[in-house]
This record gives sequence, structure tokens and C-alpha cells, in this order.
Amino acid sequence: MQIAILLFEGLTALDAVGPYEVLSRLPGTETIFVAAEAGPKRTDNGVLALVADKTLDEVPSPDVVVVPGGMEGVQVAMEDERVITWLKKVHETSTWTTSVCTGSLILGAAGILDGIKATSHWAAYDRLRALGAEPTAERVVRVGKIVTAAGVSSGIDMGLTLVAEIAGPEVAQAIQLGIEYDPQPPFDTGSPAKAPPELVELVRALTGSGRAAQQA
Amino acid sequence: MQIAILLFEGLTALDAVGPYEVLSRLPGTETIFVAAEAGPKRTDNGVLALVADKTLDEVPSPDVVVVPGGMEGVQVAMEDERVITWLKKVHETSTWTTSVCTGSLILGAAGILDGIKATSHWAAYDRLRALGAEPTAERVVRVGKIVTAAGVSSGIDMGLTLVAEIAGPEVAQAIQLGIEYDPQPPFDTGSPAKAPPELVELVRALTGSGRAAQQA
Repeated sequence: MQIAILLFEGLTALDAVGPYEVLSRLPGTETIFVAAEAGPKRTDNGVLALVADKTLDEVPSPDVVVVPGGMEGVQVAMEDERVITWLKKVHETSTWTTSVCTGSLILGAAGILDGIKATSHWAAYDRLRALGAEPTAERVVRVGKIVTAAGVSSGIDMGLTLVAEIAGPEVAQAIQLGIEYDPQPPFDTGSPAKAPPELVELVRALTGSGRAAQQA
Repeated sequence: MQIAILLFEGLTALDAVGPYEVLSRLPGTETIFVAAEAGPKRTDNGVLALVADKTLDEVPSPDVVVVPGGMEGVQVAMEDERVITWLKKVHETSTWTTSVCTGSLILGAAGILDGIKATSHWAAYDRLRALGAEPTAERVVRVGKIVTAAGVSSGIDMGLTLVAEIAGPEVAQAIQLGIEYDPQPPFDTGSPAKAPPELVELVRALTGSGRAAQQA
């Protein structure tokens, strides 16, 4: 089983690394970071570079496709014909086509979410709707072979959900124990439904200021 | 405020990227990935490379130091005099010295955890004790300016804890909402206390097989 994780300039690192850290532990799989052009890709804030080892052309039929999100970089990826053409093509033969955070906007731009329930970063629901999907405030949304996950950190939950589908719950549970995923956030403000309204508005307002949705 | 995240060959990606994704959103900070030699560093499984932009010598006095863990690579880092000398030196002037997962073994090798409570990946407590620390089965352990976190995924919780200390709870809560950290793992097997004993033994057994502790 081959797992392809898309990289592009301006991605959010945890969107990609969360599912990678889970999925790459699935026995018998090959995980590959791919991009329109191979080489290092800088994250949204410019701080970190993740390296894509293969070009999209070199990975024409992965079993699992993972599309992370980002900030301005997502818009560029949505307008990159190489990315969109590849996504349309690999989606025809994939077993699972997935996204984390605003990665769903890129799937949407490829026409993959037309008329179906999907999720994204909570501040990007309007953009997701404009691309033809039905935004849903759930952490992991599965419709057939398409799985979309909420903002940034949700890719870990999505990865475990996917492993359970692919290899059964015991393997997912072993991986959860392996990465000691026993979350204990010191606060409980991880979703708009749980955070105080003024905090939601503050973080939402930062969306329009040149930094993107998921930036606090 | 300068935050230095150590990279080395064979690190576990999420150990570094979890705290990075939180800490780099702290306003007014510069986050830098550092290594004994600059350039791409391959993760434990060889799948992903993260790029270190600066050498250790170029970052002589960071305010916050983050040391991720890994598998065989941790042992190599523990025996790398450049890493150990740098850690001893930066710890003298740091505001916070931190680790995730088996990164605490590297701190231990630098003599930073002598006689104090600390944590690590759950399967590495014996190694941590052998280095002079008192292993503690808590997710985030703070002793003065030293903060150690449990296995792999715990770096997100550690990052939020640290942001709250540095900039106050509101900023931590805003970042939590920004990365939509509202964890909903599909299972509840993320610690040895919660997982079935046979699963714990299975994952622990994999430790000795050439793959390391946190590999499922």
C-alpha cells in the first residue's frame, strides 16, 4: 500500500505530519512526500522546510492520498494545474482520498467534494461551501472513500480513523499507544463551540489580516 | 524571544512538529530549527526530511530549547559531543529547557535531569532512570525551568502549557483554537494505564526488535 502526502509551499506542517506519524506506522506501507517539484517546501510561517522526495508524476496511483492545508499557499496550490490535474487523476484509482484543515479547499478546487459533506478549518467553512461542498462541523467526516478532517491537529484523529478502516481497530490502538496519544490539553478551547465567543471572533479576525485562518 | 528546536538524524517528526506548531504562533518569537550540521535530517523511518537552517554554533543562547526524541537516532545524539556540549551551554542561560518523548534521554545524557522528576516515552522510563532522573508517568512534567513531555504526541500539550507560562492562558487558548486542538481520538488506548495489558506488551516488545519504543 502506497500513501502519498502532498507538499506545497506554504503548507501547515502539523497538517501533514500528524497523519504521517500515524499512517507511516501501518505495517506494509510505503509513505512518500510528493510535490509538483521535488525538494524542500517551506511552511506557512517560513520557519520549517519539509522535503518532497518525489514529483507528482512519479507517484501516479497511490492507494491513500493526504492533502494538508495552509494559509496563502493553499490558494496557490488550488490554482496550480499540476496539483489539480494530479488530484483528479489519483482520485480515480485511490482507495482513500483525504485532507486535513484547508487541504479540503484544494480537494474542492479539484471538484472532488461536489455536493458532499466535508469539513475544514472552522474559519474556512464559507470558502469550502463556495467550492460546492456541504461544510460540516465534525472532526473527521467520511463520505465513501473521501475523508476530510478539521483544522491542523485533527489529522492525528483522521489518521487513526483511517488505520482502523484499513487494518482494523487493534492496529490503530497499537499505533495510538505507540505515539502515546492520550491528549491532555491544558485548556478546552479547541473548537468554536467550546471557546468563548470573543476568542472565536479574535482568532477569526486574524484570518483577514494577511495571516490565514488557523493562525492565532 | 528565540526558540531553538533541535534536529538530528533519526528524530521522530511529530516530537518536533507538535511543539513547533504551537510555539511558533507565539507573537514576537523567532523559531529556528538547529542541528550539529545544517541541512535536511531524515526521520526515524527515513520517510521524511526536516531541514535545519542553522548550526548549533549559530544559536548560542536561545530562550527556549526543545529536544525531540526518536529511535536509534537518539542514542547517536546522546553520544554526539557537539549536541551534549551545546545543550549544557544553552541550558545555563535558557528560560525554558524542554524535551518531548525520548528527547529527555538526550537531556539526561547532558546531565540536565540529575535527581529530578522527568518523563519520556512510557517504554523508556528505565533508560531515563539510568540517566539519573526520576521517571514520572505524567504527560507534562515541570521542574523549575525544565519541562519534559511524554511520548510523541505530548509535545502539543507541552507547547500549550509553555505558551500559557510565557504569555498567559488567553494566548494559549487562542493558539489552541487556531490549531483546532479539540482531540477526539477514536479509541482510548493512548497510555499504558488505559490500553489492554496485552497491547502494552505487544508495543513494548517491538521496542527490542530493532525498531524503537514508540513504533507500533
